[in-house]
Amino acid sequence: MPADPNDTAPTAAILIIGNEILSGRVQDANLAWISGRLVEHGIRLGEARIVADIEAEIVAATRALSARYSYVFTTGGIGPTHDDITANSIAAAFGVPILEDPEAVRRLAAHYGPGNLTKGRLRMARIPEGATLIDNYVSAAPGFRIGNVFIMAGVPAIMCAMMDSVLPGLLGGAKMLERTIACHIGESVLAEPLAAIQARHPTVDIGSYPWFRQGALGVSLVARSTDERSLDRVTGEIVQMVRFLGAEPVAGD
Amino acid sequence: MPADPNDTAPTAAILIIGNEILSGRVQDANLAWISGRLVEHGIRLGEARIVADIEAEIVAATRALSARYSYVFTTGGIGPTHDDITANSIAAAFGVPILEDPEAVRRLAAHYGPGNLTKGRLRMARIPEGATLIDNYVSAAPGFRIGNVFIMAGVPAIMCAMMDSVLPGLLGGAKMLERTIACHIGESVLAEPLAAIQARHPTVDIGSYPWFRQGALGVSLVARSTDERSLDRVTGEIVQMVRFLGAEPVAGD
Repeated sequence: MPADPNDTAPTAAILIIGNEILSGRVQDANLAWISGRLVEHGIRLGEARIVADIEAEIVAATRALSARYSYVFTTGGIGPTHDDITANSIAAAFGVPILEDPEAVRRLAAHYGPGNLTKGRLRMARIPEGATLIDNYVSAAPGFRIGNVFIMAGVPAIMCAMMDSVLPGLLGGAKMLERTIACHIGESVLAEPLAAIQARHPTVDIGSYPWFRQGALGVSLVARSTDERSLDRVTGEIVQMVRFLGAEPVAGD
Repeated sequence: MPADPNDTAPTAAILIIGNEILSGRVQDANLAWISGRLVEHGIRLGEARIVADIEAEIVAATRALSARYSYVFTTGGIGPTHDDITANSIAAAFGVPILEDPEAVRRLAAHYGPGNLTKGRLRMARIPEGATLIDNYVSAAPGFRIGNVFIMAGVPAIMCAMMDSVLPGLLGGAKMLERTIACHIGESVLAEPLAAIQARHPTVDIGSYPWFRQGALGVSLVARSTDERSLDRVTGEIVQMVRFLGAEPVAGD
């Protein structure tokens, strides 16, 4: 289903940076959380990428996504260790030098004590020239914003705090509303009538997600639109279709 | 940490196709599972992308990844409903027509009964010209391979069955080995000596992943290499470093 061409809401991409996600060592939980917040804020997540801790990869992905979407949110690689290369890579992507930010140094000094600013800790104060800090209420190490790119931590609690401080300042569009109708019908049985409903309502995005629970096969039919009336019409037609096929909507997600 | 330039193992990318992942509705579980299997098989996962159910997006991502990696694994969008557009999109990416595959039709007929091949079910027999089927022992609907791209289901049980039938036929390289040393030391305290160890052993990839458990701050230091001896040396030096900093390795993951 193509995205609605009349939808004027801002768009976004997520760039997850980290070998630990690609190696399967860590199961990413940030993507689903961020996408949920973007939905609430009326921002359409168009794409996500997961790249390794390699500068050229981060640079290429940042440039591609920054050029294409209203906002880009990155997670990971802003800690104090040698494998935290996100800040340098973002500076390279924007072609600007990386500098020790006085306000970030001040915050780290206040947190660790002025005499305890090791080289590792000071690494977390380095941000690209022209970037602004992103506050977070969990750790002293800031994220930062440069252009339309928001650089955040990979540790979920810190990333969430950074999103919380960023989102209120971002333009959102109409909220994408979602309705789900679940039923015990095989996908291949309802494929044709569902396609007909989709064809009649091109501005509503209808998704079909099969599941298998407690020995029973079923499907969740999900309608998405910013327009409540269109959603009402579509969900009405889906319920009619389910009944016409001899079933009843059931609780589902 | 740049990838080892002497590593000759095949590389891979994962392309996850589905609005339900981008909307936050479904938490993807396929990426971590596939990456674990690739590690076992000696294939290096270089990148993953998540795109919407939009043909132009699937085409662009497939072409970009197929040109760059030894193998591309896609998940999602091969069911019978209107939003299952992966087969058509892959045909478009390769510039070939999409055809009803006689063997796929035979399997679906055997599964559903010859008289029950609805239009929706026959949709699952449509594969790009020149593609070969991927068997799976869970469902009658096959995946397929075209060029270096493997098109699989999004439903985890079916995707796993498809990977199981694909992997034994793929070339793998030396297996990437991994050792973890966990300790109760803040990342910023060990950043400098750890960077020194990394600098001495450029062919071993050392990652540092902080955690916070039961009120205690710690870090998992993960060394990765195909060479067991290099790993032994690096893990030995990491343990020495941990002790030099006044701590002991602890159980961790």
